[in-house]
This record gives sequence, structure tokens and C-alpha cells, in this order.
Amino acid sequence: MEKSRLEKQFDFCREIDKEKFIKRQTYLSDGMQKENDAEHAWHMAIMTILLGEYANEEIDILKTVTMLLIHDLVEIDAGDTYAYDEEAKKTQEQREKAAADRIFGMLPDEQNEYLRGLWEEFEEGRTPEAKFAHTMDNIQPTMLNAATDGKAWEEHGVWLSQILGRNRNTAKGSEKLWEYSYQNFILPNLEKGRIKDN
Amino acid sequence: MEKSRLEKQFDFCREIDKEKFIKRQTYLSDGMQKENDAEHAWHMAIMTILLGEYANEEIDILKTVTMLLIHDLVEIDAGDTYAYDEEAKKTQEQREKAAADRIFGMLPDEQNEYLRGLWEEFEEGRTPEAKFAHTMDNIQPTMLNAATDGKAWEEHGVWLSQILGRNRNTAKGSEKLWEYSYQNFILPNLEKGRIKDN
Repeated sequence: MEKSRLEKQFDFCREIDKEKFIKRQTYLSDGMQKENDAEHAWHMAIMTILLGEYANEEIDILKTVTMLLIHDLVEIDAGDTYAYDEEAKKTQEQREKAAADRIFGMLPDEQNEYLRGLWEEFEEGRTPEAKFAHTMDNIQPTMLNAATDGKAWEEHGVWLSQILGRNRNTAKGSEKLWEYSYQNFILPNLEKGRIKDN
Repeated sequence: MEKSRLEKQFDFCREIDKEKFIKRQTYLSDGMQKENDAEHAWHMAIMTILLGEYANEEIDILKTVTMLLIHDLVEIDAGDTYAYDEEAKKTQEQREKAAADRIFGMLPDEQNEYLRGLWEEFEEGRTPEAKFAHTMDNIQPTMLNAATDGKAWEEHGVWLSQILGRNRNTAKGSEKLWEYSYQNFILPNLEKGRIKDN
């Protein structure tokens, strides 16, 4: 028997609880615990509401917030791929597409299409909302890394060139926020030797 | 020297990281770890986007999502007050108001007023958005309690009358979601003896 619309929606809502178990490489501000995907998404959603005014192009705040809230759900199946893990990144796309099929596929058709569409839009990174969402996705962990005196950068022996590479699109969402992040979060940790200078 | 607008905004964004350390009484779906406030807010924000269609009155989704994302920030100073802890509830209002002054007060004036206003609107529970936000705030932990076979209810020896008391306003935001929650999350756990029958 086909499940009711509401059953499908609650099945999805229960399933996504698993995002809370997906650990990232970023330390929380205590410098002890590592962040999980749900915490990361919550943090960026609030930041978007407060910092959306600095987007280069006007953005739809609800759309951007929704995109950020759901953009890591695929990691429930595909796992977190660390930004500087080149091996894992090779299979990332295929793993995440299968995950999107299964997870968003639990929803009623039009909600499946809506969230899947937002996830693909994020991945493509072309619209003003997707560009700003990537700005948040880069700046939020940079802010936390700076708040913990660059602990995660130091542990992973990260080079400035890697950080700049990862942030190559950060300014496309917001010049102003990228500039702030570079001056206040990255440069001081380069000067203190937490980030390796090329 | 007065901080710049952007410095104030980032000071707030860094400060709210502390919400991730505020533990709740609800178990996550693994039945082992307890949820924190940031995870709870993230979960309800997505649920609002998907389930807002069942609100009794039409709601502004972005406003409701924002309200839910920020409504527990006061607990950074005031701590989580368990729904069935009558002693702690006596001082809750005073503790949370002082917290709101300090935490929202870090923001530029108009953002302070906006978020503080949303928090007060949530606390008062009168607008369609506040009513629906309370529906989410009650149903999300009920869903997780049911997903863990009523573990938190059993551990705390919770009575059905306490659950019904806590949920006295849940139907005001959505009759349909309260009905679903009662039938699918509460009743089965009453029948299994995880909730004590009065």
C-alpha cells in the first residue's frame, strides 16, 4: 500500500536525524569537539539571515537558507569528504548522487524535486543563491578555525595555497565577506604559523 | 572605539556556536546520544519547510524558520529547562530575559530588535508563526522519542497527563500534525507502557 503524503514526509524527517552523526573536520569553538553536519547547517542558516545583506547580487533568503539546511543530507549515505582529501573527492559525485536519489526520494514527488533541485543548484554553484551559499560554506568553518587558533589547519598541515584554492569562489558570493574572512581569519593564522606559507 | 557593523555581526555568529553545547533530554535516533539545541533547531527548520502546509492558518515560512533557528539561543546563558522540571521553570523567564539582553544585544540595533522580537513573539505564542513554531517544538522531540521506543519518557517516568499538558497548544498550530503525533508517536508508547497511564 502506498504511504500517505504525511507518512512519507515524517519518514524523511526521521531519516534526516542521521545527519547529526556526520562529523566534519572543523572544531567547535571549545577546540575539543568536532562539528557535525546539522550544527554546521544551522549555523550557516542564521549567518545567511544576518549577513545576506553583503551578497554581491540580491538573494532570496528563504531559498538560500533552505539550500544550506539540506545541502549536506547526501552525506548521510556518502559521508563527509574532507576538503583536502583528493582521493575521496574522486568518487564523491557518484556517491552523493545515489544518496540524493534515496534520501530526497523518500519525499512526495514535488518536495523531492524541490529539495533535489536546490541541492543540484548548490552543487552547480551558478545562481546568486548558490554562490552565496558557497560563501557561507567556506566562511563558517574558517571563522571556527580562527576561533580555535587554527587548530584544524595545524593538525592537517594545511598550506595557504590549499585554503586559497578551496576559497577560489568565496568572493563570487560576497566580495565583502571574503575580504573580512581573509583579513581576520586567515592572515592572522598565517602570521602565527598555523597555516603553512608557500 | 565602537565596533563596525560587520564585527558585531561576526562576534554574534561566533558566540552562538555555544548553542551546540546545550544538551537536551531527547535522545537522537540511535538511542545513545542526546540532542543539542542547534541540532534541534536545524531539524525543526527543515520540518517547517516540509510540513508548513498543515498549519491551521497561513504562515510566513521564512519568519517561522528564523524564529525556530534562534529561539533557543537564550539557553547559551540560561541553560535548557526540562519540560517537566517544575523547580527550574520558576526562574526560567528571568534567566532567559537577561540572556536575550546580552546575546541579541551583540548585534547591530535593528538586527537585535528583529531577532529579539521574534524570540518574544515565540514566547508569547499568539501569532500563526509562533503557534506553528510551538507545534514543531513539541512534535520534533515526540517524533524522536517514538523513534527510540520512548526511551526518554521511560527514563523520566513521564505520565500521559504530563505529555498532554505540554502539548496543550500543539493543535493550535496544526490540528493535523497534532493528530498524527498523538496517533503515531504517543499512543503506541502508551500501549507499550513507555508512557505511564494516569
